[in-house]
Amino acid sequence: MRDFVPPQAELRRRVANRILDTYAGYGFELIETPALEDLDVLQGSQGGENEKLIFKVLRRGARLEEEAARGGELADTGLRFDLTVPLARFVANHLNELPMPLKVSHVAPVWRGERPARGRFREFLQCDIDIVGEPSVAAEVELCGATLDALGNIGLHDCYIKLNDRRLLRAMVEKYLGPLEDAAPVYVALDKLDKSSASAVAEELSAYDQAGVGALLAHLDEAELSDGPPEVVADLRKTLEQLGRHARYEPALVRGMGYYTGQIFEIWRPDLPYSLGGGGRYDGMTVRFGGPDLPMCGFSIGFERVCDLVDMATFDAGDRKVAVTCAGEDELLRCLAVARARRQSEGAGAVYSIVRRARNVRKQREDLERLGYAEVLEGKDFE
Amino acid sequence: MRDFVPPQAELRRRVANRILDTYAGYGFELIETPALEDLDVLQGSQGGENEKLIFKVLRRGARLEEEAARGGELADTGLRFDLTVPLARFVANHLNELPMPLKVSHVAPVWRGERPARGRFREFLQCDIDIVGEPSVAAEVELCGATLDALGNIGLHDCYIKLNDRRLLRAMVEKYLGPLEDAAPVYVALDKLDKSSASAVAEELSAYDQAGVGALLAHLDEAELSDGPPEVVADLRKTLEQLGRHARYEPALVRGMGYYTGQIFEIWRPDLPYSLGGGGRYDGMTVRFGGPDLPMCGFSIGFERVCDLVDMATFDAGDRKVAVTCAGEDELLRCLAVARARRQSEGAGAVYSIVRRARNVRKQREDLERLGYAEVLEGKDFE
Repeated sequence: MRDFVPPQAELRRRVANRILDTYAGYGFELIETPALEDLDVLQGSQGGENEKLIFKVLRRGARLEEEAARGGELADTGLRFDLTVPLARFVANHLNELPMPLKVSHVAPVWRGERPARGRFREFLQCDIDIVGEPSVAAEVELCGATLDALGNIGLHDCYIKLNDRRLLRAMVEKYLGPLEDAAPVYVALDKLDKSSASAVAEELSAYDQAGVGALLAHLDEAELSDGPPEVVADLRKTLEQLGRHARYEPALVRGMGYYTGQIFEIWRPDLPYSLGGGGRYDGMTVRFGGPDLPMCGFSIGFERVCDLVDMATFDAGDRKVAVTCAGEDELLRCLAVARARRQSEGAGAVYSIVRRARNVRKQREDLERLGYAEVLEGKDFE
Repeated sequence: MRDFVPPQAELRRRVANRILDTYAGYGFELIETPALEDLDVLQGSQGGENEKLIFKVLRRGARLEEEAARGGELADTGLRFDLTVPLARFVANHLNELPMPLKVSHVAPVWRGERPARGRFREFLQCDIDIVGEPSVAAEVELCGATLDALGNIGLHDCYIKLNDRRLLRAMVEKYLGPLEDAAPVYVALDKLDKSSASAVAEELSAYDQAGVGALLAHLDEAELSDGPPEVVADLRKTLEQLGRHARYEPALVRGMGYYTGQIFEIWRPDLPYSLGGGGRYDGMTVRFGGPDLPMCGFSIGFERVCDLVDMATFDAGDRKVAVTCAGEDELLRCLAVARARRQSEGAGAVYSIVRRARNVRKQREDLERLGYAEVLEGKDFE
């Protein structure tokens, strides 16, 4: 987990606001859900590997030692590992207060107990949009278009969508490996195709017919959309056509979560070896929470990755930032009053920072310049 | 803990942004810290009652049943209960990367395992500013002024500051009750003076000399600033003078936390029976985390209370919101393309929401109007 020193956190705020403003232009309405959810909500959500990474919160008030000795539960809530499962719970809980179809945005931290590694964090922000109640690919088309726009508006142009469909993937897996009770282990292996070699993936699939595995991998290596259930292929064609040059079919795209039921997608930039976000259709997740069987589809931006790529200049509000360094209490109090009057008369965007002069004047000036203060005055000159 | 349905969450975003923009105008730089801190950081922080309310997170990977049987620790991290203790840890950790004096803003959720009660939440947002490295009342004056401005800018005018000093309070307590090893129990009782009667508070202080308690309570009921250590009285006078009609001395103001070392304050609106925020000076908290003994002072806005009072109209960006309801997939796809082109040509503030027409057309129209859509068109009329 990380701290963000200035000016990083301000940049993050501006990036999040720019993304949310883009989504607001599409009519996505912001929602908030709590960080802690009942473990019943988080577990059994087909969240794949992420369910193993839940941070569980100790029950309050219980005699925990006795509880543990009796084999009782030490925890009944946990920190959310994504925003999709909480959204399904939210929709089921508030059905009567919500418009339907519903278009929502949701920006909040999530937590996963991953082993620490470069670029992996245990707390990170997710930035999601979801459409509830739209059965057709109009949902996929709007989610992908809005996400392309959002990234474009923060200066990340030339992104494109990789598109696949879980139903097509399943059909292909079964065509080559025969009917499967549980396709999840195959998906887990195929998901590694963008990082591992085909032979390493084939090895992981050694429990299956090797000729079939070879044919499956050869098929997934082709970019032709032809084979497969006709209505699934037709829907994929429709999404691809609407997104034009910004999307392409990617037969080996898998996505980790078990809950996807239809089209799945990721957003990539040609020069980067990782995606900047992903999502898909997960119809019916509300049923687990006592809600009706609703069509659901969502897209999540990997906020941390995106923030590493943006340029502060894209978010410069053009503020005139003036710092005033003062010799002591009396000068500070006088300058504070002057600054307050100036802000009131000059209005939004006027930044006056009054601080005591540090012993190391040069370091202080450098620090202030790094924070965007083009002007650094002495208190005696500020009137 | 709560969900926020539309349009509540959007209002919260706008309120938080308006407050942060105000603080940015004063040169407060935004920081972020993680939700989970080591329990060593949170515990023993003189956080008063709040330390008992920490949500602890189960250690990962440990064999917890065995651990519990051996009397080992089940948890080594917890969710923060305020933003002040994490800030002190942050300053000690990043001293070399930060300007000094340092002025920061910090907006984030905190968690307390309170018993559920009306208006009390287990997860709530805090909105803090702090000045590190300023020993004089220039810190108090700027924090109070900026907070008055921030609330004014979200439409909460006529707020005022209640001001006291922990050193003065201590001097008064010892004048009437004699020297005390631990004044905390007296503070806890006095803190209830704004909710309970003086006789109930006197009863809670029955372990002390009753004549002294009576004299102490009589003293705290007077609003005259005269008695007390001269330099403390002089500093209080300075803060009061700088804030003018926006502040007044409140001898019975206590604040719950044990960590305050100097002036303490709350912000009130005359028509409300509770404060909208509070803070004070807590010099030296960095020492616990291996940092130098720095002057520190902060002010925290009670974001949830503030949000209950604001008027959406104050935050209306003047967007023209158009909703288009469509009969089916083909109409949806056509309108999505039209809307995308319109947003691009009309720029920021243009909101077009394309949705499938609901079976209950009237309810859908009402829902959309409630969300601010002045225009609701049919897809066939949208070109």
